[in-house]
Amino acid sequence: MKVGFLQFAPKLFHERHNLEKINIMLKGCKADVIVLPELATSGYLFTNQKEMKPVSAPAKSGRIADFFRNITAKENCAIVVGFLEKENDNFYNSQMLVFPNGRIEIYRKIHLFLDEKRLYQVGDTGFNVFEFRGAKLGLMICFDWIFPESARTLALRGADIICHSANLVLPFCQKAMITRSLENRVFTITANRIGTEKNETQEFTFTGISQITSPKGDILAQATEDEEILKIVEINPTDAQNKFVTETNHVLNDRRREFYEI
Amino acid sequence: MKVGFLQFAPKLFHERHNLEKINIMLKGCKADVIVLPELATSGYLFTNQKEMKPVSAPAKSGRIADFFRNITAKENCAIVVGFLEKENDNFYNSQMLVFPNGRIEIYRKIHLFLDEKRLYQVGDTGFNVFEFRGAKLGLMICFDWIFPESARTLALRGADIICHSANLVLPFCQKAMITRSLENRVFTITANRIGTEKNETQEFTFTGISQITSPKGDILAQATEDEEILKIVEINPTDAQNKFVTETNHVLNDRRREFYEI
Repeated sequence: MKVGFLQFAPKLFHERHNLEKINIMLKGCKADVIVLPELATSGYLFTNQKEMKPVSAPAKSGRIADFFRNITAKENCAIVVGFLEKENDNFYNSQMLVFPNGRIEIYRKIHLFLDEKRLYQVGDTGFNVFEFRGAKLGLMICFDWIFPESARTLALRGADIICHSANLVLPFCQKAMITRSLENRVFTITANRIGTEKNETQEFTFTGISQITSPKGDILAQATEDEEILKIVEINPTDAQNKFVTETNHVLNDRRREFYEI
Repeated sequence: MKVGFLQFAPKLFHERHNLEKINIMLKGCKADVIVLPELATSGYLFTNQKEMKPVSAPAKSGRIADFFRNITAKENCAIVVGFLEKENDNFYNSQMLVFPNGRIEIYRKIHLFLDEKRLYQVGDTGFNVFEFRGAKLGLMICFDWIFPESARTLALRGADIICHSANLVLPFCQKAMITRSLENRVFTITANRIGTEKNETQEFTFTGISQITSPKGDILAQATEDEEILKIVEINPTDAQNKFVTETNHVLNDRRREFYEI
């Protein structure tokens, strides 16, 4: 199975530019699953909800869903992409998993970062896993990484590949994802963005270094901190079903839940 | 507060040699807390329980407890040290926290590695935290690291400093401890051993690189992979009580337990 990430610099407010960029970069990708950054269609650094509205969209209908249904059908692949979801008057920092047959599944970010707490609702979908071509894809977004419970929950629900859309600004996550892969024996695909956004009070520089990591903690693909690039690797997702870190140590079954505080 | 680790190469079966080495290396250490490796008094690679018996000892009385009570009183410090505990006919891979006033607390390793499953009982003490000079010390041993629940449990129970005695053979833990420090905003002290042990079927080379990491993920001290060394740093353990990774993101309170699988 061929899986990859698309690392690029979305432009804040410029949905058309962003979709066009995605369209060009994914053309002829010949992959099974591609992961895109968080809020890849809208940009990140919003000040208020009024600004967010024009680049928001409903989850399963409308121009963003249509756009990705179109690409996944044409390229015959699944895409995981972060987008700004609006449902009624609520905004969510969401991820769309779009299948080539047009089916769409949604994850709404649970652990909101900084001002996202003011702008978005806390996600209510839970951490879910969806099957595609024999692989189980788990969804999580950016800051979910710092809570080991996120990836753990996905692994316990059977994820082989954690599809992690990100807009990272802190320097720690990429290395931590090696730990997340190891401790759960799963593939992780962190699709991060690059570039800088600023408003009157803040300036965020996104750290790039998107990364695909194996269940054994090997980095299978990595981007630099400033390139726009699509990287694809061949993996065997069933490698993630072997949870033995040694011949007798199983990273899930050897847990001693009776001793854990939650 | 001054905290440190002692990295050295215990000799298998040679308790007297190991205690003498510890005694020499800790002389005049002028620290508050020193962490020593796992099974530091006995060595690691036992084949059967018959071999283990002569270098095992009860937890709170006997020659090993007496030896460390003596050092902690003389050096006016607390010591965390891995030892081979025997209680009735059961062996445990244990850690002793010895206070300068002679009080001793015990942690028995919960997540056993490889052949340890055959040789030792699973620890029954749980993950506990003990106060010393205003800092809360949490205890865990070696392979406990790969289960994020171990350090998380200690952090939720108030640990400021996780005292991690280790005999590491895999290459991942030292980097993972940066993640453990960050995700829990705690100090971690991994005291690893060096050297090689072999028996008829196995050969283990221990990886050294003992490490002290801050709640912000900074490495405050690190040994090489083959030196015998005592390293001590000055820390403020109350830094671990600030659980905010940004001004609005608290690594413990922001957990959304309703969405976690355990």
